[in-house]
Amino acid sequence: MANAVDLNSDVGESYGAWTVGDDEAILRVISSANVACGFHGGDPSTLRAVCTTAVANKVAIGAQVSYPDLLGFGRRYLAMTEAELRDAVLYQLGALDAFAQVAGAEVAYVKPHGALYHATIDNAEHARAVVLAAAEYDPSLSVLGFPDSLLLIEADRAELESVPEAFIDRAYGPDGRLVPRSVPGSVITDPDEVAARAVRLAIDGAVVAIDDTVINVRGRSLCVHGDSSGAVDLATAARQALDAAGVGVHAFTV
Amino acid sequence: MANAVDLNSDVGESYGAWTVGDDEAILRVISSANVACGFHGGDPSTLRAVCTTAVANKVAIGAQVSYPDLLGFGRRYLAMTEAELRDAVLYQLGALDAFAQVAGAEVAYVKPHGALYHATIDNAEHARAVVLAAAEYDPSLSVLGFPDSLLLIEADRAELESVPEAFIDRAYGPDGRLVPRSVPGSVITDPDEVAARAVRLAIDGAVVAIDDTVINVRGRSLCVHGDSSGAVDLATAARQALDAAGVGVHAFTV
Amino acid sequence: MANAVDLNSDVGESYGAWTVGDDEAILRVISSANVACGFHGGDPSTLRAVCTTAVANKVAIGAQVSYPDLLGFGRRYLAMTEAELRDAVLYQLGALDAFAQVAGAEVAYVKPHGALYHATIDNAEHARAVVLAAAEYDPSLSVLGFPDSLLLIEADRAELESVPEAFIDRAYGPDGRLVPRSVPGSVITDPDEVAARAVRLAIDGAVVAIDDTVINVRGRSLCVHGDSSGAVDLATAARQALDAAGVGVHAFTV
Amino acid sequence: MANAVDLNSDVGESYGAWTVGDDEAILRVISSANVACGFHGGDPSTLRAVCTTAVANKVAIGAQVSYPDLLGFGRRYLAMTEAELRDAVLYQLGALDAFAQVAGAEVAYVKPHGALYHATIDNAEHARAVVLAAAEYDPSLSVLGFPDSLLLIEADRAELESVPEAFIDRAYGPDGRLVPRSVPGSVITDPDEVAARAVRLAIDGAVVAIDDTVINVRGRSLCVHGDSSGAVDLATAARQALDAAGVGVHAFTV
Repeated sequence: MANAVDLNSDVGESYGAWTVGDDEAILRVISSANVACGFHGGDPSTLRAVCTTAVANKVAIGAQVSYPDLLGFGRRYLAMTEAELRDAVLYQLGALDAFAQVAGAEVAYVKPHGALYHATIDNAEHARAVVLAAAEYDPSLSVLGFPDSLLLIEADRAELESVPEAFIDRAYGPDGRLVPRSVPGSVITDPDEVAARAVRLAIDGAVVAIDDTVINVRGRSLCVHGDSSGAVDLATAARQALDAAGVGVHAFTV
Repeated sequence: MANAVDLNSDVGESYGAWTVGDDEAILRVISSANVACGFHGGDPSTLRAVCTTAVANKVAIGAQVSYPDLLGFGRRYLAMTEAELRDAVLYQLGALDAFAQVAGAEVAYVKPHGALYHATIDNAEHARAVVLAAAEYDPSLSVLGFPDSLLLIEADRAELESVPEAFIDRAYGPDGRLVPRSVPGSVITDPDEVAARAVRLAIDGAVVAIDDTVINVRGRSLCVHGDSSGAVDLATAARQALDAAGVGVHAFTV
Repeated sequence: MANAVDLNSDVGESYGAWTVGDDEAILRVISSANVACGFHGGDPSTLRAVCTTAVANKVAIGAQVSYPDLLGFGRRYLAMTEAELRDAVLYQLGALDAFAQVAGAEVAYVKPHGALYHATIDNAEHARAVVLAAAEYDPSLSVLGFPDSLLLIEADRAELESVPEAFIDRAYGPDGRLVPRSVPGSVITDPDEVAARAVRLAIDGAVVAIDDTVINVRGRSLCVHGDSSGAVDLATAARQALDAAGVGVHAFTV
Repeated sequence: MANAVDLNSDVGESYGAWTVGDDEAILRVISSANVACGFHGGDPSTLRAVCTTAVANKVAIGAQVSYPDLLGFGRRYLAMTEAELRDAVLYQLGALDAFAQVAGAEVAYVKPHGALYHATIDNAEHARAVVLAAAEYDPSLSVLGFPDSLLLIEADRAELESVPEAFIDRAYGPDGRLVPRSVPGSVITDPDEVAARAVRLAIDGAVVAIDDTVINVRGRSLCVHGDSSGAVDLATAARQALDAAGVGVHAFTV
């Protein structure tokens, strides 16, 4: 494991005339693409373009499922029932998979987006909803999420492959949780620092927390955010550093 | 052909707290269900319920694809480009198919809804968009539409099975076109009359037009509208009359 | 106060081809109409029709503002920021007021809908957001809500008229809170019983709670739900009983 | 007229996490702001920010009304009935006006956006729908549109002030129509050329057409597109050239 890691990022989040991120560029350096499915971003034509490019670059396609909230970009908790959310996730899985299939691949994993990502850390109903939709759609799907989250625990229970991830551009607290964005220093924007963290996380499974202690972080996949300015620079720096350190960057689903 | 016909109707068009039609009842008498896919109606939980009931009743599942227009219920022409529409149709196909698969079946055919149905009669770009999305998603899909429409011509060209339909609750002009709804007598609401037309269309491929001439109408499938009050009564009357006349009612996709 | 009360109900919640409730009928018996503003229901043409009918029946027009959630009919909590919600409420106020003004009236009060109604009982940010939008739009607006809710407390603070309401078709606990809908007996569907409760609430400010104790309920306005089957019967029974008991039914905003 | 002209541009078209244009910058150089109203762009918080900035810069606020089509950014024709469109326009007018009023101003004019702008040139029903909504909402509203369009003819008929506009960054044909964007040379991106055209249009009411003939163009307002990259540069160049030429830049509604 020390010599191979996955690098994932969000793509496909544009919507009609509005664009966000540089999908073409980031798909050249990552190994797994969390593709928006239309509920917080990602119109049908964007999904086609992203899936086509992902396949051309041998990047695995994951479903970045979310609450139905275009205006809030999926970043606001929505109190859906477990059944409503399960069905909403299944709808998104099928829609994205159509584009993945037409591009010559298939959806390989699920990763919740935004407020749903955070909810599935400790909200059992929402964690279960995501996992149940994935399991009924395709038991070979993996589930990508935060280490020790209910999402991954539910995935294990449903006998789906659970994949913990680490964040290379976010500061950790000594407890292994992410430091909230509102705290100064929580978001790391220097490409060199991000690159160094990526290598250490991949090889040692460790990172320097915000209080300068060294903590262990389990991450079969490394996440770099795709919607920030500079995202491409961060992802590229991380990829080059991993390559230089002899760490293979491969999709965990391969 | 004289002794077997398909009976199709629209279902799954409810949306959240708003309901339309009686899906449970109509799924007991039809053989093919045109299921809304979320763009003019049909929220995810409705799709699940309808697909489950359709499978339990051995009713074939078709994708009733439409323009993205919830407010207009898909009944207003929208000037999408061919590529935009193709992608929108593919998105809907995949989303519905997820529910069909989870219910133990799969989407078997495509039928455009509302304004898109009418557009695909003579708008080549929109006809092609629907057919191309169907062909790339699954070449075994059938395409259900108006006889001699560009939609069916394009389906033939793409080597998809094209299935012409006849309407049992709408008046025809002597030219074989439907009489517009604004004309008195264009919508037939008497169950006995609808039943009689269904039997004659199934056995003879003929119907009495609004000017009392008898015209030939090709229809491997008979359509009864699902969103009118009385739709269940009409569909039930048609089904019972077809049964009594010895006409088998079977999905054309079987 | 004993001899006059307001009777309010939700209207205007249809959306395009989907209809809910019988707005025409209910507007004949109520004195204040909580009109949906497009975020959980209420398309523009519905708003026009409802405002026109309300004015013709001398019914006061209130803005039934809600979270932006058509699919959930505004019944699901959405974690908006205070600023987002304030702006969303202001948008709805202006939109509805255009139709009220064209009909010859104006929006007279605000009442949150569904999950937002419940949130504003004890969520200070969401209560404040609703009140601040109302205050900046028109300081003569009243705020209709649950007695002792943060919503009414914030309204008092902002020097808007706060109007507590009582529910005539819902059971109360001995603590003055509504009994959850999931509890048997929580929803009262017998018109005679609803009518009797309306009269006692109007004259005595009292109601028999679900444990048979008599509790005091402050309510300058009586709410009857508009989206249930039988809503018109309940509202009509209440109105007739109030008339017969000599209780004037008038909008609180008059 | 030779010594004064209005300069208008589209603003407020961002939506949630997606941004387009640089509203702050362009509001420093224009005199009239066509503010999106939420149907093709323009979420409530964006409307508040834009109206506040417009008022601070003494820029007139116009309602840039559009078809309800977020995904298509209002650029696709939608076959609404006249009544549906009138009501949709009224809804948008009221919503935007709430923010204009809270900012200390009011909506001063209406200008259709995108596909609706083009439709109202020769579609009588859609032109009438926009004008009727404006007239019933506020008879002091002006209507900004293409010279000799049905929109302006209907505005005259309804006794609303009609204001023709000229485009400073688009090529004209010898017939006074805009050259389609698909034609090379149709979109002018050089700030100096745009500035020169602005001055000549303002002073002489004339422009060099794409075939090098000089044509007369009536334009009490000059439009510069706000959603292109470089829009701020074009608008700034035009404003500076108008100032230098002694042409006052003032809102036509003042």
